[in-house]
Amino acid sequence: MKDWNQTEQKQTGQNQAERRRYHKGLADAALGRKKAELVLKGGQVFHVFTGEFLEADVAVEDGIIVGIGSYSGMEEVDVSGKYIVPGFLDAHLHLESTLVNPAELIHQAGMKGTTTFLVDPHEAANVSGRAGIDYILKETEQSQADVYVMLPSCVPAAEFEDNGCRFDAADMREYLENPRILGLGEVMDCRAVLETSPGMMEKLELFSERVMDGHAGYLGEKETDCYRLSGIRTDHECCTFEDALREVRAGLQVLIREGTGAKNLEAIVKGVVEHHLPGHSFGFCTDDKHIDEIQREGHINANVRKAIALGMDPAEAIKIASWYPAVCYGLKHVGAVAPGYDANLVVLSDLRQVQVEAVYYHGSRIEEQPDVETGKAAESREVAEFPVPENLLHTVHIRISGPEALRLPISGETARIIQVIPGQILTESIEEAVPKKDGCFCPEGDYLKIAVLERHHGTGKIGLGIIKGFGLKHGAIASTVGHDSHNLIVIGDNDTDMYRAVQELSRCGGGYTVVENEKEPHTLPLEVMGLISRKPYQEVRARLHEMLEQTRRMGVPGTLDPFITMSFLALPVIPKLRITPRGLYDVLAGRFADPV
Amino acid sequence: MKDWNQTEQKQTGQNQAERRRYHKGLADAALGRKKAELVLKGGQVFHVFTGEFLEADVAVEDGIIVGIGSYSGMEEVDVSGKYIVPGFLDAHLHLESTLVNPAELIHQAGMKGTTTFLVDPHEAANVSGRAGIDYILKETEQSQADVYVMLPSCVPAAEFEDNGCRFDAADMREYLENPRILGLGEVMDCRAVLETSPGMMEKLELFSERVMDGHAGYLGEKETDCYRLSGIRTDHECCTFEDALREVRAGLQVLIREGTGAKNLEAIVKGVVEHHLPGHSFGFCTDDKHIDEIQREGHINANVRKAIALGMDPAEAIKIASWYPAVCYGLKHVGAVAPGYDANLVVLSDLRQVQVEAVYYHGSRIEEQPDVETGKAAESREVAEFPVPENLLHTVHIRISGPEALRLPISGETARIIQVIPGQILTESIEEAVPKKDGCFCPEGDYLKIAVLERHHGTGKIGLGIIKGFGLKHGAIASTVGHDSHNLIVIGDNDTDMYRAVQELSRCGGGYTVVENEKEPHTLPLEVMGLISRKPYQEVRARLHEMLEQTRRMGVPGTLDPFITMSFLALPVIPKLRITPRGLYDVLAGRFADPV
Repeated sequence: MKDWNQTEQKQTGQNQAERRRYHKGLADAALGRKKAELVLKGGQVFHVFTGEFLEADVAVEDGIIVGIGSYSGMEEVDVSGKYIVPGFLDAHLHLESTLVNPAELIHQAGMKGTTTFLVDPHEAANVSGRAGIDYILKETEQSQADVYVMLPSCVPAAEFEDNGCRFDAADMREYLENPRILGLGEVMDCRAVLETSPGMMEKLELFSERVMDGHAGYLGEKETDCYRLSGIRTDHECCTFEDALREVRAGLQVLIREGTGAKNLEAIVKGVVEHHLPGHSFGFCTDDKHIDEIQREGHINANVRKAIALGMDPAEAIKIASWYPAVCYGLKHVGAVAPGYDANLVVLSDLRQVQVEAVYYHGSRIEEQPDVETGKAAESREVAEFPVPENLLHTVHIRISGPEALRLPISGETARIIQVIPGQILTESIEEAVPKKDGCFCPEGDYLKIAVLERHHGTGKIGLGIIKGFGLKHGAIASTVGHDSHNLIVIGDNDTDMYRAVQELSRCGGGYTVVENEKEPHTLPLEVMGLISRKPYQEVRARLHEMLEQTRRMGVPGTLDPFITMSFLALPVIPKLRITPRGLYDVLAGRFADPV
Repeated sequence: MKDWNQTEQKQTGQNQAERRRYHKGLADAALGRKKAELVLKGGQVFHVFTGEFLEADVAVEDGIIVGIGSYSGMEEVDVSGKYIVPGFLDAHLHLESTLVNPAELIHQAGMKGTTTFLVDPHEAANVSGRAGIDYILKETEQSQADVYVMLPSCVPAAEFEDNGCRFDAADMREYLENPRILGLGEVMDCRAVLETSPGMMEKLELFSERVMDGHAGYLGEKETDCYRLSGIRTDHECCTFEDALREVRAGLQVLIREGTGAKNLEAIVKGVVEHHLPGHSFGFCTDDKHIDEIQREGHINANVRKAIALGMDPAEAIKIASWYPAVCYGLKHVGAVAPGYDANLVVLSDLRQVQVEAVYYHGSRIEEQPDVETGKAAESREVAEFPVPENLLHTVHIRISGPEALRLPISGETARIIQVIPGQILTESIEEAVPKKDGCFCPEGDYLKIAVLERHHGTGKIGLGIIKGFGLKHGAIASTVGHDSHNLIVIGDNDTDMYRAVQELSRCGGGYTVVENEKEPHTLPLEVMGLISRKPYQEVRARLHEMLEQTRRMGVPGTLDPFITMSFLALPVIPKLRITPRGLYDVLAGRFADPV
């Protein structure tokens, strides 16, 4: 087997086409005139085009699958009794949300069989604009995976948003020649699409010959048709089968999402199975999934496993994880174990459990990192801290006078409340009587305070609101990860701890923090744009685990990941009620709302 | 409804992208804010992405489908109780073989629901090179259909062929900017692909990012894998389900052919149904189908009807006729009744019979031509003869001394014989004792003589052989349509009539002729490259019908179309035994063979 570092790292970007060029060496290996470089012997090879599993050898030359049949190789690997399926594709994810260096998630997910990633770096773009996108491109350049970038379409997510940088059609133009730029990222601003607003039209035009990702789960029938008509091809926001059915009928490719925050797979797959829908208009994605969870249950292979458990034919589930979305995105060389395809191969020891035994990318095995194998801690890693361009550090600029800035006066009998829904990023908007003291909201029971502070330009804007269903007691929790503008979000039951949490994140350049009962904050610094740690993922994972345990002790229910849930509460494009530095926002009505 | 001539004819080629651009007018129609230009009301609309038939209106604006649901239109057509399916796609055909102006077949097939045609003008290229291809492009430019050209890859079909013109990679380069050039036409020279021969490699390289059509039905497993590895994507040469299964497994799109000469549908579809194969790796094509037969039984809709009759799910059969091949060829705007797709719509009065009631192309109905409706003869047509560039006329140049040039000496006891197989373009190669006189073959019973005369450059080359299964008595039949070099082929039971037939075609500039018992020849002149008539199709059809009747009276069995069958007998890339101006050719052995 070739060593990945020596031979393949050079072959990024532009020279992929050159690498795949048909030549005599490939033909000779295919025809059995010479031994192939690598042969996986005697596995049950999945044929995506027929749906069959057939016992055969898979011959690989120059990182390309050259033949399926009976072959001899320079290197031979016995895979008898095992299944060979194509490398999986995550059709939509944000690497920033993993909290660690982008390459870390790619590697961990790669170990679980995912070899193609379509990433939308819109968190990075919202904080640092082009510098943020460049960072994601550069950090994933040497990955043992195909990492494509969909250019963020809605930065800021809405005109009234207080984010760090704008990213417009003019900025996009300079990226179009990069072969790793595949298309336009999730178009969240559906209104701009339906209203044919000039800024949006410019972006749609720029990408009219490429794939454009959508973000539209809740549109009506005519709106869905119009959205598809605009040229947008996919959507990963469907939470119910009815949504998915409406969108598939309209010609959208529905990317079934199963991540840490949003879990839509069961609802959609059950419907697909029950209605005998063909799988070709679906794909799988994670959107946002923590490394912790990836290691525990897997990545796209977990989507496949769950789909099979829900009654989906394994062949169809694997195709939804590979070939179908590859076709949708025009990726002609991935998604199948067939001649001419890149040798991105997953060896499964168990088909229905989608138990991954080995993964090959361009014919090279993706190896465990030593510390993972031995269980040793991060200090054994060569890189203790990843290098980061200076302009991506020091991005947190808060202006706040003191805890009194967090007071929330309540005039009426009832107040408008953000109701959290476990396992969903949707929220409900409810109106109830809330506990008060001195004319201000006084957190009590399940009624907590939430504040969002503008953190990019030190404008001092603070939005205040009430949240229900979060369950925290005796303290505060705060984060600079808050889609999509990534302002500082803090939730708590008292202003002192909330203020302390704000100060802590201001001090350390962003991150997650928990303050319990006026004690020292417990913090995970995310110094890179306030989104990403410089530490290896093991260290991040350990810290995050401790902090999650702490929040459980403080009352956050097990059905809810507090940091992930919190990170969506400021996103004013997902129904129903959100909060921004300018106050509460009613998404369906498309306007700010009074808290009282 | 807009008038096709006034509005759509201008919109060919380059400005299709412009025509499809999303704009406010489309959005307003989609959202029901204004009446759409055309609405088909209340039909059972076929949703290719789910396989469902659902009652709905189809709204069309600017030739684009903008919405499926409940709509009002400026023009409304009641289609209740009828089925709306996407326009069909013929994935591989040669327009020259229709004998008439290319636009004639397009129109007739259009009336049967085919609105996308992928044509390979390799007959024209073999006779007249670039001038031939230009003729096909120009004559189809104004069609009420999408006519794409796959550039002929094997002109001549083999190095030892005596054709009219070469067409190499250098010639192809000048066509690449034309948006109607979709890819590379059927790569018949499989040997050159497997051997990575330089001329072939240059063509494969030139089209590596486009679709390349194959021609490989009979390769072995490893050869099929290698052929696919070269980048070739499709094949329409499978005659058995086993061939199709092998090729689909290898990742080729199998285009199921049902034409006048070759009928492969029953064998393949039976297997697909029996083995529950998914349809996504298939397409339909006609390859070569006479207008006469198109009018009688239909075009691609006939493929769909036959597939349904063989037990295929109608939804799947329609998808094989539309969306699946559209995806394979990267045609993003055809193949579905869904928003953003071109309004190429077929209204069926009967689903299982695929009975076509109306066809829309870009939202304009394809109308019958008046003389067809009234049953009047061709004189009522505006154009009595289609104009043709002078350089495409006068292409038949024969040098022959007299009938004695057709004598075929037989030395041994037995002779090698071409055995015709009814309904197939494959032939068998057999050896049998044959009737002799004066040391020469003397046609008798089912043993006829066949001769192929070089006709482009007057070289005087004549290949002679014996053919069985053709059934002609007391005369000769001759044609200048002979794939792919289009030399003059003549079959008969006596040299006098055969010579007379040769003289007749030499006189009239090519065509079909029948000479019975030394009487006056009965001829269909095909003056354009010796392939195509200048007359309207009704006239051609009438003449052809008379001539076919005559050949039946002369003994040609009803299972065999003598002109079509004859036209493949000189094609030295289809097994097993062929004849060229240089003599008999053993295709599987790859060499010329002695007749004795």
